[in-house]
Order: sequence, then structure tokens, then C-alpha cells
Amino acid sequence: MNKNTENMIVAHGGGPTAVINSSLHGVVEEARKCQIKGIYGAINGIEGVLNNNFYDLNRLTSQELKLLSRTPASAIGSCRRKIGNDDVKIILNNLIENNVRYFFYNGGNDSMDTCSKIAAQAEMINYDLRVVGIPKTIDNDLYNTDHCPGYGSAARYIAVSTGELLCDVRSLPIHISILEVMGRNAGWLAAAASLANNSGNMLIYLPEIVFNKEKFLEDVKCARRRTDGLVIVVSEGIKDSKGKLIGDTGIKDGFGHTVPGGAADVLARMISSNFDFKVRTEKPGLLGRASISLQSKIDAREAYDVGVQAVRYAINGGTGKMISIVRECNKPYSYSLKTVPLDSVAEREKKFPLEWINENGTSVSNEFTEYCTPLIGDDLPKYLVL
Amino acid sequence: MNKNTENMIVAHGGGPTAVINSSLHGVVEEARKCQIKGIYGAINGIEGVLNNNFYDLNRLTSQELKLLSRTPASAIGSCRRKIGNDDVKIILNNLIENNVRYFFYNGGNDSMDTCSKIAAQAEMINYDLRVVGIPKTIDNDLYNTDHCPGYGSAARYIAVSTGELLCDVRSLPIHISILEVMGRNAGWLAAAASLANNSGNMLIYLPEIVFNKEKFLEDVKCARRRTDGLVIVVSEGIKDSKGKLIGDTGIKDGFGHTVPGGAADVLARMISSNFDFKVRTEKPGLLGRASISLQSKIDAREAYDVGVQAVRYAINGGTGKMISIVRECNKPYSYSLKTVPLDSVAEREKKFPLEWINENGTSVSNEFTEYCTPLIGDDLPKYLVL
Repeated sequence: MNKNTENMIVAHGGGPTAVINSSLHGVVEEARKCQIKGIYGAINGIEGVLNNNFYDLNRLTSQELKLLSRTPASAIGSCRRKIGNDDVKIILNNLIENNVRYFFYNGGNDSMDTCSKIAAQAEMINYDLRVVGIPKTIDNDLYNTDHCPGYGSAARYIAVSTGELLCDVRSLPIHISILEVMGRNAGWLAAAASLANNSGNMLIYLPEIVFNKEKFLEDVKCARRRTDGLVIVVSEGIKDSKGKLIGDTGIKDGFGHTVPGGAADVLARMISSNFDFKVRTEKPGLLGRASISLQSKIDAREAYDVGVQAVRYAINGGTGKMISIVRECNKPYSYSLKTVPLDSVAEREKKFPLEWINENGTSVSNEFTEYCTPLIGDDLPKYLVL
Repeated sequence: MNKNTENMIVAHGGGPTAVINSSLHGVVEEARKCQIKGIYGAINGIEGVLNNNFYDLNRLTSQELKLLSRTPASAIGSCRRKIGNDDVKIILNNLIENNVRYFFYNGGNDSMDTCSKIAAQAEMINYDLRVVGIPKTIDNDLYNTDHCPGYGSAARYIAVSTGELLCDVRSLPIHISILEVMGRNAGWLAAAASLANNSGNMLIYLPEIVFNKEKFLEDVKCARRRTDGLVIVVSEGIKDSKGKLIGDTGIKDGFGHTVPGGAADVLARMISSNFDFKVRTEKPGLLGRASISLQSKIDAREAYDVGVQAVRYAINGGTGKMISIVRECNKPYSYSLKTVPLDSVAEREKKFPLEWINENGTSVSNEFTEYCTPLIGDDLPKYLVL
């Protein structure tokens, strides 16, 4: 890094999305326009800053930048690392030593916490550092933003996949498929299954509602009275009345959160040991956040725009904020961007609204359909149903 | 069904593919051209014939036929039913009663067996019935055809998904993902992961090679010396030295075959109980055969063509055969169609060639790349790798 010029660092935190690279694209293009000289990506998120491991993003040609927006996951890597007070000091030392004046962190609520700590430390030691958060998460669980870049594409993936699955289970008699959908504590992504362009037979279970085995078996029994197959969509984060995960991998992530997984298999065993129904599970997992072919166009545009806006805000003197999306109109969909304090986003989770879940706890309301439809981009493909 | 006209029935057997409806499209269009009056689809395969449950395909508009080719799974349904001698008699009775003169069965090796029995019975009782098999299976395990319609699209899905997964596991440090791929006894589909447009770190396990736990753990240990993540692709059908499935759902299908599933989770437990590596599993399952967005164009065209050819062959007096694909040239890819005896395909499985598997049993050769590349259609998307 050239220490004689004012430098900029962008980093990615947490799980990648199908459009996190679009935000990176936006950051780099705007930083070039604003004539920031040194434009660097921290390799593997905050770990890259801690270890002085950077990639010179000025090396990218305009053709490579375009390719970046169609590249899955995070091109500069990411990490899950909870930073302590000592880390914050090392980070600041490294930023000062490299004459870094702009720091952009693209991530979720944990990353906004990291961002907030860095901004506070810079202010405390009176170092002029512009720290701006860029929202991102397929979970859509950030406060103070209408929705999060990354969610629209992951939601499109789930909606399209559910529609295809409904066609498949209808093809073969006596067939139940349980689709396990990512989402630690919030059901936004699983709820997107309801958008599937298909009049199929479906039950949706979100982590906001306590999972009850007896009720579940009753739901399945009723739903199986219809003969056109059944898709059960289950959020990996569903929990019992004691708050215990139904599917628990036994693993903890870098922030100490338990990693969920396997809920669909647990539910399948419940069904097969109580009924004579043929049941199987599908768990696309990471494929759902990495799919470029099902990237939502509006999501990719918004992701690019929040990247651009983060740079503009910092160049104009702003710091300590996250870029947030404001929904201006639903039909036709339009949005604007504003800034919100990092502290109002950090370490909080915006759950799926209980009032958007039906009384039986197995489907979601039209309010959600109206909320989510514009975010998934182009109309879903239509199928022939005989 | 109008019994005063010569009628035609088309039926689907076994698991659907992303292009089985394209074959149906081909059959219907060609039957109309050939002025077959009654064009019917048996609902849920041979069960529809047994129960006289048919859909009048003449009802479909040309716009609906186009939509059919972009509709996932089987629009007229399918089944998994082993037919006995009594069934064959009922089938023939129903066909005769409805004045059905053409019977097309689109399926895999089990369906060709059904087809063969119907053809034999018709001949025995001297009923002029033209019985033609249309090949289909994502497993690509049919004898006497270069490859099977349905395989190219499923292979494209696996190749694209693996490429996206390689990007994802590279994004976060210490990350292993195990991708479980369909395929009861043949590794053709899992092998398609090797086409992933990515220089990533990958191990592939096919059912043709006996799975050995100790060797597997050694493979993983060696592969993890590289720092860019690891994708382990495992065919759901891998078995130990005693022929026991590593992942066994405990379910048997209509043909008495054990249904595999869960191999990836078993392998993940092996890794996590022996190493300190972070490991997770993805099992797209049915999504891999239902994905229309990753349909291979060449696969869709071939599927349409075998449907057309089946009708032409029958109209010209042919019976008792399956349409088969002959690869004429690899670059540029071209193919022709011929017919092969149903008996030469029925109840046999074409395994992945052992000579196309490398010595360590964890990757496949360039011969496979050359074989498979034309089948998956358009070039795979390119990604930016920094």
C-alpha cells in the first residue's frame, strides 16, 4: 500500500450473498470517480485488516469489474470473527500506518458492530477515518432498512426452487418434499417460498413460531388429504418451546452462535415414523445464496447503489453510519437511500412480523407478498399446469 | 376417449427431468403433423393406463405447448410401479378397448422393461400396437444410447452449482462443503461437478468405487493443506466394501430399489469427529432435476427430437424399440437418432467407466470432460477469481 496517498479499504463480513460483489463493484467505481488514489480490498474481511492482507482493486479492468457483479460469493473473501478491544487497537494501528482514510464494511448485524467499534475508536483517538457500513444479508434481518441487499436474490432462489419442487412432487403420487431454507432466527427467506408461481400444496414453518411436533403432524395429515403432493418449507432455525433448535449441527460460528442444520431431516423422520407417507428432504444450503442465474436484477442494482452511496457519503465527510434502503413506492417499485447510525443496526435482529403469519402458523399474508414481490426482480417463470 | 378413431397414448415413468416435457412437446407436435386423431397422455404413467385415466393433449394450444417445454417435472405425472403379468393383461385390455394403436413410454431402464412387456403381450395376442420407448434419465445409465435426455440439464445444474459452491467456500476461511448428488448406482451426474468453471479444490466420490472411510479421511487431510476451501462431491449411491449404502434412507421405491440419501451428512460426521475442520452439507436433491433456469439447450433439443422420432418410427410401422442417440461429432457437436431393441436397455445399468476415474478415485479424466461438455449446452458462466 502506498502510504503517501490517502487510501481506502473495503471489506466483507459474514456469509456472502449473490450480490455482495455488486456492492464491491459500486464501491470501486465510485471511489475511482471520486479520485481516491489507493483502493484496496481487505482479504477475508476484518482478518485482512488485522493481518495487513490487502488486494489492490485498482488492478481490475472495467471488464473484470463487470464480471465481478456476476461472480458468486465474495471475490475478496469474508470472515466470521468477533473483534475484541485489543483487535480494535491493532486495526486502527494498521489503518493509520497505511494512511487509510476510508473504511467500508459490507455485512450484517455482527459486521455493523465491528464497524461501530472501529468508528468509535477512531473518534476517540482523533484519527480522521470515515467509516461507513454497507448492508448485506440473505436473512433480511437488519433493523433500520426496508430490506437488505442479498435478500432479494436469495428470496428469488427460494421462490423459483419451491415452484419447481411443487411441479416435481405433483409428478409422482404420494410424495412429500421438505425444503430446508437458511435463516438462523428470522423467517424472511423461508417466507419467500410463498411467492412460488404455483397453486400447489404447501406448508411453511418459520423460526418466529414455536415448533410443536403434535401440531406439525396434524398439519401434515390435513394437507395430505389433497392428492397433488406436498412441499413443506422449513426454516433451518425453527425451535421448540424451550428455544432448542430442531436441527442443530452442534457447531458454533466465530460469533458463538449455534449453527443450525438438519431440521428438514428431523421433520422427515417425524413424518415417516407416524405415517405411511413417502417423504424426502432437499437442502440447497449455500447454493441458495451463491446462485447467479437466479440473481434478482433489482437486488443487484440496489447492492451496487448502496456501494456507490457509501463512498459518496464518506467523501462528503460522513462517518459512523450505515447506508439504508427506503421503499418509496411499491407499484411501480422505487427506492431511495439514507444513512442510519451503526449502533441502531448492530447486534439486533429484525424478525419476520408475527402479524404477517396466518393463524395456523403455516403460511404468510398478502402483506408479505406485496413487500417481497418487487425485491425478487423479474416476474417468476410461468409453468403449464394441466 | 373416442373409440372410433385410432388413438395414441404417451406416458412418463420414473423420476422426471428438466426436459421430459420437451419430449412430450415433440411427441404431441409430431402426432398432430402425422394426423393421429386421438392424442392422450396417461396420467401418472402406467397407472393412468391401468386406471383408464387420460388427459386429452389435443386440448393444448400451441402457446401452451411452448410453455410445456419450460415447465419443470412431468406435466402429465409419472409413477414408479413394477408391473406384473396381470397388469400387462389389464393394460392391453384397456388399450384395445380404447382403440389405442400407438403407445409411447418415456422413461429409464425400469420403464423400458414395462414397455418391452407391453410390446411382447401385444404381439402375442396379435394386436397391432406400435410400442416405442423414449429414453430419459438424469442418471445417464441407459445402455445402447450415447447419453440420455435429462442428463445434460442435470449435469449442467451440478456443474454450475459446484462452480458457485467453490466460490462460496473460498470466501470464508476453513470451510468444507459436501455436495450430495443424485445417482443410485451410476456416477455420471456426480462426475459432472468436474466441469465446474473454476480452478477450485475438489474431491469427487462415485458409486463405482468402493467407499473406504480411512482413505477418505486421508484424502480430506491432504486436500485441506490447500487454503482455498474444499468442495467434496459425493454421489448419494456410494457404498462400502460390503455393498451397503453409506447414506440409506431406509425407504424402498416401487421397484424394490433401496432409496439412497444422507451420504453427505455421514461423511460430514466422519470429518468433524476426526478433524477440527468446519464442514457443512448441501443436498439440492430434486431441485437438480427440476431446474428450468439451468436447462441445457442441447438437452432440450434432443429431448424434443427423440419424441418426434418415436412418433415417426411408429407411424412408419416400427415397434418394440427405443429411440437412441448417436454422437456423430464432438466438435462441433452433432448427433443422429437410431432405434435399439427395448430388451437391450431394460433393467440394465450403464455404469460410469472405471477407466475415466483417476487412480486415487477422487477425480475424473479428460475423456469424460470431452464426453460431457457438449451435453450441458452453452458455455458455463465465467467468474472473476482474484
